[in-house]
Amino acid sequence: MRAYNFSAGPAILPVEVLKEAANEILDYEGTGMSIMEMSHRTKTFEKVLNDAEALLREIMNIPSNYKVIFVQGGATTQFAAIPLNLMSDNKKAAYIETGNFSKKAYQEAKIFSPEGVRIVASSKDKNYTYIPDCSNLDIDKDDDYVYICENNTIFGTKFHTLPDTKGKPLVSDQSSCFLSEPVDVTKYGVIYAGVQKNVGPSGLAIVIVREDLVRDELVFKTPTMLNWKVQIDAGSLYNTPNSWAIYICGKVFKWIKDLGGLEVMKKRNEAKAKVLYDYLETSKLFKNEVEKKDRSIMNIVFRTESEELDAKFVSEAKNHNIVSIKGHRLVGGMRASIYNAMPIEGVYALVDFMREFEKENLK
Amino acid sequence: MRAYNFSAGPAILPVEVLKEAANEILDYEGTGMSIMEMSHRTKTFEKVLNDAEALLREIMNIPSNYKVIFVQGGATTQFAAIPLNLMSDNKKAAYIETGNFSKKAYQEAKIFSPEGVRIVASSKDKNYTYIPDCSNLDIDKDDDYVYICENNTIFGTKFHTLPDTKGKPLVSDQSSCFLSEPVDVTKYGVIYAGVQKNVGPSGLAIVIVREDLVRDELVFKTPTMLNWKVQIDAGSLYNTPNSWAIYICGKVFKWIKDLGGLEVMKKRNEAKAKVLYDYLETSKLFKNEVEKKDRSIMNIVFRTESEELDAKFVSEAKNHNIVSIKGHRLVGGMRASIYNAMPIEGVYALVDFMREFEKENLK
Repeated sequence: MRAYNFSAGPAILPVEVLKEAANEILDYEGTGMSIMEMSHRTKTFEKVLNDAEALLREIMNIPSNYKVIFVQGGATTQFAAIPLNLMSDNKKAAYIETGNFSKKAYQEAKIFSPEGVRIVASSKDKNYTYIPDCSNLDIDKDDDYVYICENNTIFGTKFHTLPDTKGKPLVSDQSSCFLSEPVDVTKYGVIYAGVQKNVGPSGLAIVIVREDLVRDELVFKTPTMLNWKVQIDAGSLYNTPNSWAIYICGKVFKWIKDLGGLEVMKKRNEAKAKVLYDYLETSKLFKNEVEKKDRSIMNIVFRTESEELDAKFVSEAKNHNIVSIKGHRLVGGMRASIYNAMPIEGVYALVDFMREFEKENLK
Repeated sequence: MRAYNFSAGPAILPVEVLKEAANEILDYEGTGMSIMEMSHRTKTFEKVLNDAEALLREIMNIPSNYKVIFVQGGATTQFAAIPLNLMSDNKKAAYIETGNFSKKAYQEAKIFSPEGVRIVASSKDKNYTYIPDCSNLDIDKDDDYVYICENNTIFGTKFHTLPDTKGKPLVSDQSSCFLSEPVDVTKYGVIYAGVQKNVGPSGLAIVIVREDLVRDELVFKTPTMLNWKVQIDAGSLYNTPNSWAIYICGKVFKWIKDLGGLEVMKKRNEAKAKVLYDYLETSKLFKNEVEKKDRSIMNIVFRTESEELDAKFVSEAKNHNIVSIKGHRLVGGMRASIYNAMPIEGVYALVDFMREFEKENLK
């Protein structure tokens, strides 16, 4: 039986995609081999890669002046690649701190430019339960970019309004909201995402970068594999890519397109989130502490008043086929990641169990 | 029908492993999810990772003072990680150039230490058809390491005797011979390999490093993801790893163990290589130009006298279920990569077709 898997990442994938992958695992389209066994220089794999990029461009409506690369190392490797690729001799950048991953990205940038990287807004004062006002940030004329983590997986918040970057390129880590709803790509300098949250298996990141931001010469000594221009010029084939992950992502892009695209994803995701948030607003046992205007529709965090009760909830949830519902180790409590592939039935099952648990445990 | 897939990488995998993976793709061991969908922080995945490392340590007989990490970015990322992690303030290293990948590794090291990195032996003079004498290399007392690419995928050569490093740590790229035969790990400072040639799917490299070489403080500004100490301390879980590739590699390690380990692999691989080399020695149409003492048992290169005939061979081979037999684009001709998972029947089929082709095309 398939579980209702609320993992924040790696996370639930469409069952149709997994079935197709199983069927093709010994013989992909009559080639007599698995995608895992196929040279990345074959026409067959090049088609897999090119089709994946074309589908992604179509469903995200990515303009032609944006480059798309499929790279290894996860979003965490991009924490370094971003300053390495985007910084001019100014070596300055403005970071907005809304949780663990934006903080890590900031700290990584400081390795390369200890003096030039600044936090210009933060929600640390209230334990990252909101998105700070970014309408009048202290952007420096020499800043090379402004950085956000758009959806905060651990804290359950999301930027619903993008910061005013005062003309500087916006760099956004969309790992946990990638392809969850339409975005206007033209508002960004760089969008990137580790795919293992909402799109595919782990070991792959997608970087979408406006071509005028791609530098021929980098300011820092940079490992070649982290150099975006090298990856762009090689069409993501500078070395052997994570071909299995690209293949699975391509199938997920197709699944999204066939369901109606990102507008439909958004409606489905909002409907799922509403079921859970509506219940949380009425619950006397569970609470979600995120400011309403800043709620994520991908990751919904909640807790009871006691850690013991939280642990009991997580443990008993398993008997209801609800798994990976425990909150991140930094914050405790519970977290329901309800990515594209989570059926609404999973959310109903969760809320049914929460009601039952509340009835039994509310004093 | 499964093809005889002679690809140099990604490359043929054991069919038993692929079948198991297909069976588990919707539900790994009753968890109700695929490995691709499972948090890397679950006990289930930690067991997959720990079991893979334990099996690797067992089949390679890795001493306890060597650390093992599973990282992303392929061997190419390690081309940068090696100088970044191993260099002291000396910033000196000696490279042996035996083909494309050792040259790339050398060039990458020069990004970080343009003055301190030297080629101390090369087989470039004869188009990399041999392994140079490494019995009295010009090692500097300040060299931090000596670097080799142990098996040269493109040129079909292999170090059958390791260089005399005069006490300096030996760093070996074993990507295309990893787990093909027993090695004495204690002779190395670092062994590393991209797994997509002889072990698993692409998107994963394994680094085996002697613990006294792991530096607490690095000389260069280094992306955190490339820092071996960080990866070691995090048990390969600093960020989300390529969990699918680790899972498949674990199954391949088990397959190797069940077949009898690396001694058996060596016998099988030598037997397969002998079939092809014996024929090549007698052929009047095909020739292999590698010095006999330096032959690889993993990648066997051969060509006819004409490019047209080579192209005809590659094209007609497909009708005999022999695929990905074309040589690397840098050198042309043909290449048979006969990794662990290639059955001897595949080599028989190849040689049968070569004989037939020779009869028809020899003038």
